[in-house]
Amino acid sequence: MEIRLTCIGETKLPFIVEGIAFYQKKLRHYLPFVLEEIPDLKLSQNLSPEERSLKEGLVLLKKLQPGFLVYRLDEHGKMPDSLSLAKHLSAWQMSSKKGVQFLVGGPFGFSPELKQTVPDAISLSALTFPHDLVRLMMVEQLYRACTILKNEPYHHGHLKY
Amino acid sequence: MEIRLTCIGETKLPFIVEGIAFYQKKLRHYLPFVLEEIPDLKLSQNLSPEERSLKEGLVLLKKLQPGFLVYRLDEHGKMPDSLSLAKHLSAWQMSSKKGVQFLVGGPFGFSPELKQTVPDAISLSALTFPHDLVRLMMVEQLYRACTILKNEPYHHGHLKY
Repeated sequence: MEIRLTCIGETKLPFIVEGIAFYQKKLRHYLPFVLEEIPDLKLSQNLSPEERSLKEGLVLLKKLQPGFLVYRLDEHGKMPDSLSLAKHLSAWQMSSKKGVQFLVGGPFGFSPELKQTVPDAISLSALTFPHDLVRLMMVEQLYRACTILKNEPYHHGHLKY
Repeated sequence: MEIRLTCIGETKLPFIVEGIAFYQKKLRHYLPFVLEEIPDLKLSQNLSPEERSLKEGLVLLKKLQPGFLVYRLDEHGKMPDSLSLAKHLSAWQMSSKKGVQFLVGGPFGFSPELKQTVPDAISLSALTFPHDLVRLMMVEQLYRACTILKNEPYHHGHLKY
């Protein structure tokens, strides 16, 4: 079962690119993982927040994977702890779905249309984090969930560097 | 008013060291910020989780800053959003305290003694993140809180790289 993280905008900060690569490599030992970055809309800085999230929403809708469960990553979504995220992952793996797709929106969030099409949302934190840092946090949590399901000691900080 | 982040263990992952430096530099334009890393206890891997958090707790107690407000960072603490963290920061700055100190514990959390001495806790997320990533997340949030208080556009993703 594939896990796909579909994001608006490219990751630019070098330390975040490195961090994502670090956890992604580990995560791929457990399951197929795809990070899909959609380049920012041209002239997006000139759009109003509503126009921007509307246009980004249209782009995201085209990227929805058929046969996948889809969740938005949204600070107002359900807030699992790491153990319950691991339980979700286990349930997803036992489902008949082809995969799970997580959507990370742009800086002004998701359009009403996108929220209607993808009503389920998971929140990593009540705090607002930069969009590229959210990717890093999510990849780390997916890796952590895999180690929890395998009963490996990473969850209590025994990461070997 | 100083903000101090006192942490058990040194940050080792290069991308996290870089990330902390990135946000710390920005944060220090707004207020004096000190990141205090306490080296891991010798032979800490041979201790039971209880012994380890007990010993780490004793070390942390010695580092408490007189005249500071002190909070543990703890996934079971109160969960502010970024706007309420900014409001807290504003209230702290208007208080007569010398500063605010945040404690980041080791992989097995805080000892009962430490929790008793420092009852107030803030949670960045219900999820468990690596201890060094928590530092990066916290420095970013403090920087974000400063920009929110100054009404600067960073909070909606207009970070200039």
